[in-house]
Amino acid sequence: MVRTITSLHNPIVKNLVQLRQRRARDRQHLMLIDGARALRLALHNAFPVTTIYVAEDVAHLHADLLQRARVTGVALQEVNAAVFHKIGYGDHPDGVLGVAAQPGAELTALPARGLPLYVVTEGLEKPGNLGAILRSADAAGVTGLIVCDSQTDIWNPNVVRASQGAFCTVPIAIASAPEVLDWLRRRHIQTLVAMPSASQCYAEIDLRHPSALIMGAEHTGVSPIWHSERPIRIPMAGQVDSLNVAQAAAILLFEAVRQRSQFRTADTLPADSVLH
Amino acid sequence: MVRTITSLHNPIVKNLVQLRQRRARDRQHLMLIDGARALRLALHNAFPVTTIYVAEDVAHLHADLLQRARVTGVALQEVNAAVFHKIGYGDHPDGVLGVAAQPGAELTALPARGLPLYVVTEGLEKPGNLGAILRSADAAGVTGLIVCDSQTDIWNPNVVRASQGAFCTVPIAIASAPEVLDWLRRRHIQTLVAMPSASQCYAEIDLRHPSALIMGAEHTGVSPIWHSERPIRIPMAGQVDSLNVAQAAAILLFEAVRQRSQFRTADTLPADSVLH
Repeated sequence: MVRTITSLHNPIVKNLVQLRQRRARDRQHLMLIDGARALRLALHNAFPVTTIYVAEDVAHLHADLLQRARVTGVALQEVNAAVFHKIGYGDHPDGVLGVAAQPGAELTALPARGLPLYVVTEGLEKPGNLGAILRSADAAGVTGLIVCDSQTDIWNPNVVRASQGAFCTVPIAIASAPEVLDWLRRRHIQTLVAMPSASQCYAEIDLRHPSALIMGAEHTGVSPIWHSERPIRIPMAGQVDSLNVAQAAAILLFEAVRQRSQFRTADTLPADSVLH
Repeated sequence: MVRTITSLHNPIVKNLVQLRQRRARDRQHLMLIDGARALRLALHNAFPVTTIYVAEDVAHLHADLLQRARVTGVALQEVNAAVFHKIGYGDHPDGVLGVAAQPGAELTALPARGLPLYVVTEGLEKPGNLGAILRSADAAGVTGLIVCDSQTDIWNPNVVRASQGAFCTVPIAIASAPEVLDWLRRRHIQTLVAMPSASQCYAEIDLRHPSALIMGAEHTGVSPIWHSERPIRIPMAGQVDSLNVAQAAAILLFEAVRQRSQFRTADTLPADSVLH
């Protein structure tokens, strides 16, 4: 390892701070990964981590991670506690911060599996929602997440953190809405648009076909380009306007999982065969 | 309306600031409701709002709400902009803040509807998760939310805010886990415990019976008292450990809604009758 960085004025330190801003990330095609858990998943998934910065006072706690990083050719850079406090996130960072190249995110690079299930987000703003959608996309085993016109870039460190590591396990593409719609149509993928005003309930849709679920922002909804596609709604019994977009995505994704799964669903059982 | 409060040292102002802390809320049995949208829902649902504080410079924007409050006997108190800045939440409060009595939250006061569906949370900490669970509980039309041993009180203003108004539309009870388990058993309600290690998938359970879904904290899970009940899991395809607890609750609640609903589900249709 090269010399420990101890100066808050070191240009590397200044740049790491700037990478919390989208403009710097976009210009440099870099992103930040906070914490050992996310970095372990990133290395395990061959995510393009280039450097790991580690606070010297806690480096011994991360011996396994750092060894793994060495083996895979990731540069390691020690910093002192004061510098880590400046570059880390929040009040209690665990002492490791990674820098990675933003991976390619072309539509054409998405996996072409047998029975695709895509989730498409349009115009989402809250990093927590994007992260939570990544997390349920991972759990549902989607073919890919496609991000359109995001107010918040998918490589935002708060998205990365909220995704609990799913930023590196879910295939991600970034494209404009017209490109995505065209791409889906050419592949004969049924395109289902979550809209509170839709007449058809999501559970009436046969999701055993190749499918894409289009999720817009909670208040503004999807852009007009999607209005030609099939709208679906989640029935709401209550007085509150809408589900959180991440919860709506989870409900829709897991209905697809349920329909596609091999286990016996309650629908195939007589009404009281299950109750004990 | 009585005289406008203009002093930051006014004891009422100091107390409103203290009510952001749980200890003060618990002692005074009061809670805060931020914003016009939540207050409108609260008044509409006869929630025990006692006073609404309004910033004098934007009072005219809330004429309807204030008129409604007057009619229902809620006290109104004008404050100047500086005072509202101190008592309101965040950088851009909308200029109205309500104080309400914490409503009674006895198990025995929960509605006894024909086909009950309860969601029970145990040990949850993040206000955003509790709020999101309230929101999906509202959307799913649950009979009640039962809160056990919450690290965060359900009347926390951040829960109230995240619930988007569902704090006053969903019947809420607070009780210890043993009390809740006993109460559910005496009512012959099947008790289903979300656990990643469970062998049975949630979609195999017949949720057309009276049911309670027990949701524990993401990392620690439920306490041992629930281990005698039926564990269910949401199958996870990915590498990330678990769904967010609020997303898991949404998936389970909406599976119950689906099973109980009248609409034709995709399971009853031939495989390609839906695709257009």
